[in-house]
Amino acid sequence: MDKILVIKIGGNVIDDEKALSVFLQDISSTEGKKILVHGGGKLATRLAQQMEVPQQMVEGRRITDAETLKIVTMVYAGYINKAIVSQLQGYNCNAIGLTGADGNLIQSHKRTNVNIDYGFVGDIDNVNADLLVTLLHALDIVVVAPITHDKKGQLLNTNADTIAQEIAKALSKKAPVDLIYCFEKKGVLLDATNDDSVIPSIDKKKFEELKEQKLVFDGMIPKLTNAFAAIDSGVSKVIIGNASELKQIITGHAGTTIVHGNS
Amino acid sequence: MDKILVIKIGGNVIDDEKALSVFLQDISSTEGKKILVHGGGKLATRLAQQMEVPQQMVEGRRITDAETLKIVTMVYAGYINKAIVSQLQGYNCNAIGLTGADGNLIQSHKRTNVNIDYGFVGDIDNVNADLLVTLLHALDIVVVAPITHDKKGQLLNTNADTIAQEIAKALSKKAPVDLIYCFEKKGVLLDATNDDSVIPSIDKKKFEELKEQKLVFDGMIPKLTNAFAAIDSGVSKVIIGNASELKQIITGHAGTTIVHGNS
Repeated sequence: MDKILVIKIGGNVIDDEKALSVFLQDISSTEGKKILVHGGGKLATRLAQQMEVPQQMVEGRRITDAETLKIVTMVYAGYINKAIVSQLQGYNCNAIGLTGADGNLIQSHKRTNVNIDYGFVGDIDNVNADLLVTLLHALDIVVVAPITHDKKGQLLNTNADTIAQEIAKALSKKAPVDLIYCFEKKGVLLDATNDDSVIPSIDKKKFEELKEQKLVFDGMIPKLTNAFAAIDSGVSKVIIGNASELKQIITGHAGTTIVHGNS
Repeated sequence: MDKILVIKIGGNVIDDEKALSVFLQDISSTEGKKILVHGGGKLATRLAQQMEVPQQMVEGRRITDAETLKIVTMVYAGYINKAIVSQLQGYNCNAIGLTGADGNLIQSHKRTNVNIDYGFVGDIDNVNADLLVTLLHALDIVVVAPITHDKKGQLLNTNADTIAQEIAKALSKKAPVDLIYCFEKKGVLLDATNDDSVIPSIDKKKFEELKEQKLVFDGMIPKLTNAFAAIDSGVSKVIIGNASELKQIITGHAGTTIVHGNS
């Protein structure tokens, strides 16, 4: 199979109707087979408020109780996933939208943590890459909502970044895979106050240097660590950039590319 | 391809957790490839109340304004569809859950009515039977939510009975198809006050007689008219019965079978 792009978008694109529409047009006019993994956005929080379901956060993470799971399933697998699919169809891009339960695409287990009960949150055990290949033969793009299942009847709320990474890793056994993470910035910045100071490429050596110099910190460290893990597992390339520059990211003219090697 | 069962369940099964679970176990232990079309149930109405979205009904039909479309998409395509898929997966039945937008499965157009504006309600133009055949080669069952699209980016709320019928008709060009409608009663009753007075089979002549004798009336008349239309379009058999008797319905030992011919 030809190269597959695995692209992850988060709340900053999903919550911005105009940005989402432009992004989906861009993705529709891009050649090749794709997987689009989407996160949540603010709608789930708003819906929880309307339904008077209190949202419990521990260390910046949402605790997914039974009612919250119902809400995120409705919002992620229902509203957001189908809004994306129908828009893509409108742009002549043959999309299908799935959760990890559909076709047993992503099997996970309920997270166990001795200190914190995260509730119905899944850690991934297996990605059904064969199903993705079958679907991509018939369709242009598979749109994946961040909900998985335990194969025992339980849906589980699952981190979209991790889903994108595990899908990319599993698919890389079948075809060359590029993994693109879209986030708020145009890439990894050399100077956090200058949005145009994007570092074009980072290898492991450079990553160590950047960490030492405290030029990468906070959430960027696990993002990059995961990117290197993906490359070590067979993913060809990981690019971190902004959704508005998708076309340039794909052609290698925007974003930060995470590369193997010692160069 | 071998025989395909197209089964439609409505709110009476969906709203009853125990009944739904038994039904899904029954369907999982039944041989052969299947399409399950599900209706809505009471959750959408409850959610609309919680979100303070007023529900407008005209002649017993829900008017689907933009906010209501959002709610039914969340509930039907999100919560109900994924609850069914994950339960089926738990029973070792490889299910995939879709709307009509996914893979352009069901294309429809917004209903135009000079007297009543039903809002975002779709009347079906086309069913992508090739996609269903492809999916059924890889999987056991396709679970379809009653949401379609216009291929221009707009999702549309669509009657589940009609979806089941149009899917059955389109698939009957590819394989033998039996269409099973599950509803409250055990079948078409000769005596509306006696739940066990199920008429085992009805042909067109019998249907005319029953109508004349006023033994079928109200909602049963369009149901049966549609059943005959399905048979005229190539569906092998239409059976109307109760979800609790699915196994007997499939083996021809329960429900009312709508048959062709003049017997």
